[in-house]
Amino acid sequence: LQRQPMVTMDDGADLISMLHTDRRDLLDDVIGGTEETTTGVIRLRAMEADGTLAVPVVAVNDAMTKHFFDNRYGTGQSTMDGILRATNVLLAGKTFVVIGYGWCGRGIARKAAGIGAHVVVVEVDPLKALEAVMDGYRVTDMAEAAAIGQMFVTATGNLHVINGSHFAAMPDGAIVANAGHFNVEIDIKALQAMAESVALVRAGVEEYKLPNGRRIYLLAQGRLVNLACAEGHPAEVMDMSFANQALSIKWLVAGAGENRPAKVYAVPEEIDKQVAELKLKAMGVKLQELSEEQRKYLASWALGTTD
Amino acid sequence: LQRQPMVTMDDGADLISMLHTDRRDLLDDVIGGTEETTTGVIRLRAMEADGTLAVPVVAVNDAMTKHFFDNRYGTGQSTMDGILRATNVLLAGKTFVVIGYGWCGRGIARKAAGIGAHVVVVEVDPLKALEAVMDGYRVTDMAEAAAIGQMFVTATGNLHVINGSHFAAMPDGAIVANAGHFNVEIDIKALQAMAESVALVRAGVEEYKLPNGRRIYLLAQGRLVNLACAEGHPAEVMDMSFANQALSIKWLVAGAGENRPAKVYAVPEEIDKQVAELKLKAMGVKLQELSEEQRKYLASWALGTTD
Amino acid sequence: LQRQPMVTMDDGADLISMLHTDRRDLLDDVIGGTEETTTGVIRLRAMEADGTLAVPVVAVNDAMTKHFFDNRYGTGQSTMDGILRATNVLLAGKTFVVIGYGWCGRGIARKAAGIGAHVVVVEVDPLKALEAVMDGYRVTDMAEAAAIGQMFVTATGNLHVINGSHFAAMPDGAIVANAGHFNVEIDIKALQAMAESVALVRAGVEEYKLPNGRRIYLLAQGRLVNLACAEGHPAEVMDMSFANQALSIKWLVAGAGENRPAKVYAVPEEIDKQVAELKLKAMGVKLQELSEEQRKYLASWALGTTD
Amino acid sequence: LQRQPMVTMDDGADLISMLHTDRRDLLDDVIGGTEETTTGVIRLRAMEADGTLAVPVVAVNDAMTKHFFDNRYGTGQSTMDGILRATNVLLAGKTFVVIGYGWCGRGIARKAAGIGAHVVVVEVDPLKALEAVMDGYRVTDMAEAAAIGQMFVTATGNLHVINGSHFAAMPDGAIVANAGHFNVEIDIKALQAMAESVALVRAGVEEYKLPNGRRIYLLAQGRLVNLACAEGHPAEVMDMSFANQALSIKWLVAGAGENRPAKVYAVPEEIDKQVAELKLKAMGVKLQELSEEQRKYLASWALGTTD
Repeated sequence: LQRQPMVTMDDGADLISMLHTDRRDLLDDVIGGTEETTTGVIRLRAMEADGTLAVPVVAVNDAMTKHFFDNRYGTGQSTMDGILRATNVLLAGKTFVVIGYGWCGRGIARKAAGIGAHVVVVEVDPLKALEAVMDGYRVTDMAEAAAIGQMFVTATGNLHVINGSHFAAMPDGAIVANAGHFNVEIDIKALQAMAESVALVRAGVEEYKLPNGRRIYLLAQGRLVNLACAEGHPAEVMDMSFANQALSIKWLVAGAGENRPAKVYAVPEEIDKQVAELKLKAMGVKLQELSEEQRKYLASWALGTTD
Repeated sequence: LQRQPMVTMDDGADLISMLHTDRRDLLDDVIGGTEETTTGVIRLRAMEADGTLAVPVVAVNDAMTKHFFDNRYGTGQSTMDGILRATNVLLAGKTFVVIGYGWCGRGIARKAAGIGAHVVVVEVDPLKALEAVMDGYRVTDMAEAAAIGQMFVTATGNLHVINGSHFAAMPDGAIVANAGHFNVEIDIKALQAMAESVALVRAGVEEYKLPNGRRIYLLAQGRLVNLACAEGHPAEVMDMSFANQALSIKWLVAGAGENRPAKVYAVPEEIDKQVAELKLKAMGVKLQELSEEQRKYLASWALGTTD
Repeated sequence: LQRQPMVTMDDGADLISMLHTDRRDLLDDVIGGTEETTTGVIRLRAMEADGTLAVPVVAVNDAMTKHFFDNRYGTGQSTMDGILRATNVLLAGKTFVVIGYGWCGRGIARKAAGIGAHVVVVEVDPLKALEAVMDGYRVTDMAEAAAIGQMFVTATGNLHVINGSHFAAMPDGAIVANAGHFNVEIDIKALQAMAESVALVRAGVEEYKLPNGRRIYLLAQGRLVNLACAEGHPAEVMDMSFANQALSIKWLVAGAGENRPAKVYAVPEEIDKQVAELKLKAMGVKLQELSEEQRKYLASWALGTTD
Repeated sequence: LQRQPMVTMDDGADLISMLHTDRRDLLDDVIGGTEETTTGVIRLRAMEADGTLAVPVVAVNDAMTKHFFDNRYGTGQSTMDGILRATNVLLAGKTFVVIGYGWCGRGIARKAAGIGAHVVVVEVDPLKALEAVMDGYRVTDMAEAAAIGQMFVTATGNLHVINGSHFAAMPDGAIVANAGHFNVEIDIKALQAMAESVALVRAGVEEYKLPNGRRIYLLAQGRLVNLACAEGHPAEVMDMSFANQALSIKWLVAGAGENRPAKVYAVPEEIDKQVAELKLKAMGVKLQELSEEQRKYLASWALGTTD
């Protein structure tokens, strides 16, 4: 902020949040910003709702080429990677609880099942819970999941989704990690308060001994396991997010003269499609072209069953 | 239409289309309508775009509890079911081409892979094509897919996605079916024009002999294979669609006095969630509840990384 | 047997069993026989063990190109097919109990998971149970599985693996089918004795009403659901079994002069490989050839790490 | 060998090979040995076939609780782990060639598909090739696979399965690793001879620049990628192998007085089952018990279809 930015790029809405509190003096010169994460977008929408937001912000996170790919395939893989590097446990046959079935959670669940784990999903949204059921997973609430799980990964963007009562119910040897945002999803203070002792048993793996004789292994102190224990998203995923960032900023700057209202904007669909087309070309994948006849058919409503 | 309806329920927009052409006299008494299929919604949006649409219509198809479930899990299963009942071929090891990676196509691809087929996806939309790649499928265009496929299923809502040039390239014994809408996705006239002979070899299975000596098997004369050769969606899927229909009509009627503009409406989110909650309860699946603290956290933007 | 056969081909060991009991007079002229099923081979080995077996029999069932394919891919698919034709229920999201994790059970479990069911496996053999766990399935005993399952399929070759106590524990609407051998795997008499009423609600589907108010749906009266409700194995699977049968009989007849001891024989490995090679050629799949250098390497023990 | 062992434990048959060449003087005191790897067993069987083997050796590798689990689930996971740690590439959407469809190859293929790769299998054995086809993979020979693959993993136990002609055909950026045994599966000398330059670009990743402008990335200098770039098998897999080793040695020693012929022995079935039962108990998984009635049924051949 000391550089007096005209455009902000955020990963969690911290910069834009500070701009709206401590450095409101800089707001006038800011054309707009972009936000990369789900959690950041949640915060921005809250700011928009209570009238605090003072500049237009593009929710890059909501671009299809971002959350559909980065969150699902990137976080899915890098979370498994982080858990394996930290623990070297066998995932096949483990009861693996995924908390949150958003794009990150869907990705984690599929990768965990793909490597042979028995996946259990916990959700608060009935639509996502139903999708998890239909995708073949066992779905239940935290109270039940805590008692049967051997590994737990949070991906909700919410607070204390694993709390003290859950730790108390977990079997001996349970492994707990966070793949959401911030280090708030796991109530670490509750765990610390319960524990008789804590020891660092491998890099990134803390062993908490509970009074009931059981041991719980917390990865990366509850910080993002894919960043702390692995290397975060592969470059092949980040390239699409960055392309969205760059093209969204270009779009913000190009529209600077129009006095765009201060709200949260979706990434324009053309940008999204352009990023996907460039990516496919780079991968050597052939896309089917629509014929002229097909284009007309899709655009016309007069053709029907009986035609 | 002879019954002079006040509300219409459509499956392909045929009724509403006729209402806007041959029976415009009835339009004044119509409060609105609902539409169940992707193809119908495409037609309605075209009508809205060219200013023809004269009544409000709820796109029930676009409800999450409809297309997320009916199209994906329902059509996915019933398409496999239709193909098996019609042909009794072994799907394991077959090269299975799915044309269109919308919700139906995604469902068909997953079920086909789940039963052991080697799935190839053809798409025109770069975002969907990229998703298919990342989901682990081989993605290419029709020209290449036609030459390697042993089974072909269309799910695009578009015209002639399999045409004469594709039939000419297919290997001997190729099986061709449609799971989209109407019987227009496969260019049957082109196939008929090419064929030296046609014979019904099993119920719902026509064998076309081509001059190159190869045989192509067309299922259900290109009509919807899951309806024509199986029993369509299971009741457990239709119940959610029907709940959406009923609740959407209730919503239309309740708002009849407000003179809602004549356009295509999404199903209100509360209806969608209500349907999902009822379904989970019926299945005995536990949903996690948000705590008061969590509700506040999600609603507040002031809490952040450093908090 | 009235035709005084020189060679027998059995599907369950019934013919050879009768030959060793009621028609021992015919035994002298019999060169040998073949047996197609797991259950039949179990019976033959019991006959060999107690010294009753009087002719050489080839266990065609044990050929890799039989049980690896016919039992796993064939029964897997046709069992799903039979259940769908009989019931038209949605399999996605159902808790699906597979009893027995032999080749049939493995195939059924994989197809059920592939179509979106949540699979639970019950096994008596610790090696198979461990494999099921590592394959990602939930594994438990019948007492627990009965209480949580919505669909049950038996594939054990054993007696009464679903009994009265299990029926009493099942939830309302449970569907029960057999994909093993004979109609003995389900204790139907126990179910009948418990039921207040029985009604045929669809072709092949009997509804048993229990005193606890719950309904249990028995498919095909406990007979093989893939034969009774679908069309059995696809031709593409049976062709390999038949090729094994034919080539095994050729092998028996060619060796008739050698006075082969009366025991259960494996299908000679060359026959097995020949069948697989013919099948791959028919499917147009390329096999990698070994180079001369590679052949030598595999045959030689003197080459090692330090070489 | 300086310690004059009475029992040998080998991992590749190097110790026993040296014992039969340079230190034959020690052979008289050796009761027998155990061998842990597929490659070692191949060498031992070659020694047995040419009459060189002078002591009994238990093929621990062939125990179900070893190769069924260690090779499939252990190598499958640790190979993915090694590739991710070495490269941090996104596996979703990659064309991933698995060379060899033995237990290791099957495990690698399933984990690669499970993480979203598009898997292609190369095999020399028609039975295994057919199994790979039916499991849903694309199967072809090395000549074709080399041209389409983006990642290559060898698991054959054989020599130079990737050779100079294959490197010449690979696309730019191809990643090549070995998960078999020794460092002989990849013809590294051929690659070195072709390359214009070699550079270490990440720990364990060498970049070879070819005259055609393409870059090939060789992991761990062709040594076992799961050992060199990750941590080898998880403890939960090795425990079963070690239990087999220990119990097999106990069995060898217990039978030392019987003058067992010098050949390759299978692990006794009781040991295998005992290891599996102990493992399940440790995992808290319930095994179904056979009833007395069921035990009798399985043992008796007299009961049949008509009974």
